[in-house]
Amino acid sequence: MSDQHSSLPLGFRYGGVASGIKPDGQLDLALILSETPAVAAAAFTRNRFAAAPVEYDRDLLTRNNDHIRAVVINSGNANAITGPEGLARARRMARAVEQALALPEGSTLVMSTGVIGVPLPIQRIEAAAPRLARALRADWAGFEAAARAVMTTDTYPKTRTLEVDDGQGGRFRLAGLCKGAGMIHPNMATMLAVITTDARLTPEAARQALTGAVDASFNRISVDGDTSTNDTVVLLANGAAGGPLIEPGTDAFDAFADALTGLSVHLAQEIVRDGEGATKFVTIHVSGLANDRDAHRVAETIATSPLVKTAIYGGDANWGRILAAAGRSGVLFDTTEAALWITSRGPGKSDYLPKLQLVANGMPLDYDEALAAMHFADVELVIELSLGRGPGRATMWTCDLSHEYVTINGEYRT
Amino acid sequence: MSDQHSSLPLGFRYGGVASGIKPDGQLDLALILSETPAVAAAAFTRNRFAAAPVEYDRDLLTRNNDHIRAVVINSGNANAITGPEGLARARRMARAVEQALALPEGSTLVMSTGVIGVPLPIQRIEAAAPRLARALRADWAGFEAAARAVMTTDTYPKTRTLEVDDGQGGRFRLAGLCKGAGMIHPNMATMLAVITTDARLTPEAARQALTGAVDASFNRISVDGDTSTNDTVVLLANGAAGGPLIEPGTDAFDAFADALTGLSVHLAQEIVRDGEGATKFVTIHVSGLANDRDAHRVAETIATSPLVKTAIYGGDANWGRILAAAGRSGVLFDTTEAALWITSRGPGKSDYLPKLQLVANGMPLDYDEALAAMHFADVELVIELSLGRGPGRATMWTCDLSHEYVTINGEYRT
Repeated sequence: MSDQHSSLPLGFRYGGVASGIKPDGQLDLALILSETPAVAAAAFTRNRFAAAPVEYDRDLLTRNNDHIRAVVINSGNANAITGPEGLARARRMARAVEQALALPEGSTLVMSTGVIGVPLPIQRIEAAAPRLARALRADWAGFEAAARAVMTTDTYPKTRTLEVDDGQGGRFRLAGLCKGAGMIHPNMATMLAVITTDARLTPEAARQALTGAVDASFNRISVDGDTSTNDTVVLLANGAAGGPLIEPGTDAFDAFADALTGLSVHLAQEIVRDGEGATKFVTIHVSGLANDRDAHRVAETIATSPLVKTAIYGGDANWGRILAAAGRSGVLFDTTEAALWITSRGPGKSDYLPKLQLVANGMPLDYDEALAAMHFADVELVIELSLGRGPGRATMWTCDLSHEYVTINGEYRT
Repeated sequence: MSDQHSSLPLGFRYGGVASGIKPDGQLDLALILSETPAVAAAAFTRNRFAAAPVEYDRDLLTRNNDHIRAVVINSGNANAITGPEGLARARRMARAVEQALALPEGSTLVMSTGVIGVPLPIQRIEAAAPRLARALRADWAGFEAAARAVMTTDTYPKTRTLEVDDGQGGRFRLAGLCKGAGMIHPNMATMLAVITTDARLTPEAARQALTGAVDASFNRISVDGDTSTNDTVVLLANGAAGGPLIEPGTDAFDAFADALTGLSVHLAQEIVRDGEGATKFVTIHVSGLANDRDAHRVAETIATSPLVKTAIYGGDANWGRILAAAGRSGVLFDTTEAALWITSRGPGKSDYLPKLQLVANGMPLDYDEALAAMHFADVELVIELSLGRGPGRATMWTCDLSHEYVTINGEYRT
């Protein structure tokens, strides 16, 4: 984690407490409060079994996207596939926070993550709400407590802050926190993220900036190909930085959108680096297809191939599996145009190793096996696959598939 | 393996030898010979990087589908992604067998399985061809040697024989051998199968019967979602049983097609049972969708979900992952119609355990946790998921995802 501890956005407070949902007193309830009504935008899972908090938030945002005050998040229970009672409990969770902070009804968003299909222990959350309200702080300690309280199988809290010149003489700040380690795949797979900013945005600017940022970040990562029932990214913009209102199509909007995308890419990459059991971070660049969509489909097939991911785990230069995955992606291309390069970026000596071409014109080259082995042994791999001369290109970030992934997911619930 | 040692089809001989492609003297070269010209039909991988032997066979069968004499198969090297030289070597492999047996040119099909992107050691195959020809036998020992010679990560040879009354006073026989343990997925994923029969079929009858059988068997299994570059199923029908010629649309055709499908389902299930690292065999029934295609897509998403497969490995009754996988399949359905049952079929006490419903109307039931745990602990699981009232249904067979899978595939090439 490379947080720079730059200033947090003005006008927000954060906190986390242990409510007893998780055993052994771990933090499991997080709260983010805007001191004034904030503009809100969100992106949600596309899973048909969207969890109760996702349903609750989707509905709330259709009625209120410009005076949101808080986001409350629990870990340890997903409140998913819990029927009408689950939705009622999501509502009670929001209401508990609103009452504890004397906020208007319908001003609080809700997120949950954890086991599916188990009733949410709402009484513990209701009992903890006053304590959670008292735990709020405007400083880094509060922010980190919130980030810790949303963790499930994450091994460290994931945060990122940025301070940006708005190009009009002012500055704004962004702070993101997220969780996610398994069930990670495009379309918001078990990941939750809250990004606060004191930039002054219109609801439409918030929506557009978030859509672009999510598409370039959280929708480009895969840990295991599984898309969860609960994924949510929320952007809260309270305008506390002052300055002119930022609308789409302006320089100030571009500055904000770029910053938001950069922060989101960082958070998304952190999720992959901390993927369940991950020992390696892999960047996959695919180019030369007819269009970006085809390129993305090829990249996604490679990023989710168990054979590719176990070979990378084993440090095995088994590049045939990469091409075989591309070949079964369902995308049309001329195999005699295939070219493949490998390089690595990890700490130490491999920073200085040259990029190595393994395949040209669909055929293996007589490459340096020792150099290939050194690249594949690295903890940061970059795979470049070109499949023709078309303009379509895509990048995805993924991790390897290790024994530890199997251990974590064979024993998660029990 | 439950081979009944019924009679092998008349007029075929089989053999297997060690040619030195695999280290330590393991069998790696198999041969199946029809003593007379045979009708042939085949189904191939849809991977864009189809291997050289697949290209060779596809081309050969457009010219000759009724006087095929032999199939030669090597393991240890896939001859895939090897360019024009790979195709030349596939041709040399066929030619070596044709010369050793004094067969006409263009009468021998070729298959390869093993590592991708490494030049086929053709000289070893050419040197071994005369010895392979001498090893041919019409008995079970020859058949089993051939089945052993095609193994890669398989832990046992996979064969099945059947003897069938043709309904017209005669009998015909079928014998299938196959391999496949990883890279297994619909559309012929790293699996090779040769089915011989002495039934007397027209080329069109052979083609139709094989298409139907493959769709109901080899295209319904998944080990790891990866589709290989080499998968091929070949049917050879030499007519040695005599009797009237079997054409599509007749009772005799139906009798043959049913027998071929039954044999293919058995072989396909054997491949899953011997899936790389598999400890459990899982049957997934999906029903209630708008059509069979949607049902198959849901079943396939469940069958390839790493989270579902690791939970099953761990014996964890984490059924939420099954529904979550269905929810991300991209298929439309009403989640409030979802119903889920689990049962098991393994040896011993669980034969007598009742089927257990876990979910009704999209909500978890207050089910017996101990019974659920007993089902999930079994080595043969049956999952039934209903997602509405539509007529669409599908079945898939898969296995769990274990530590051993990761070990096998992290170390395969090296």
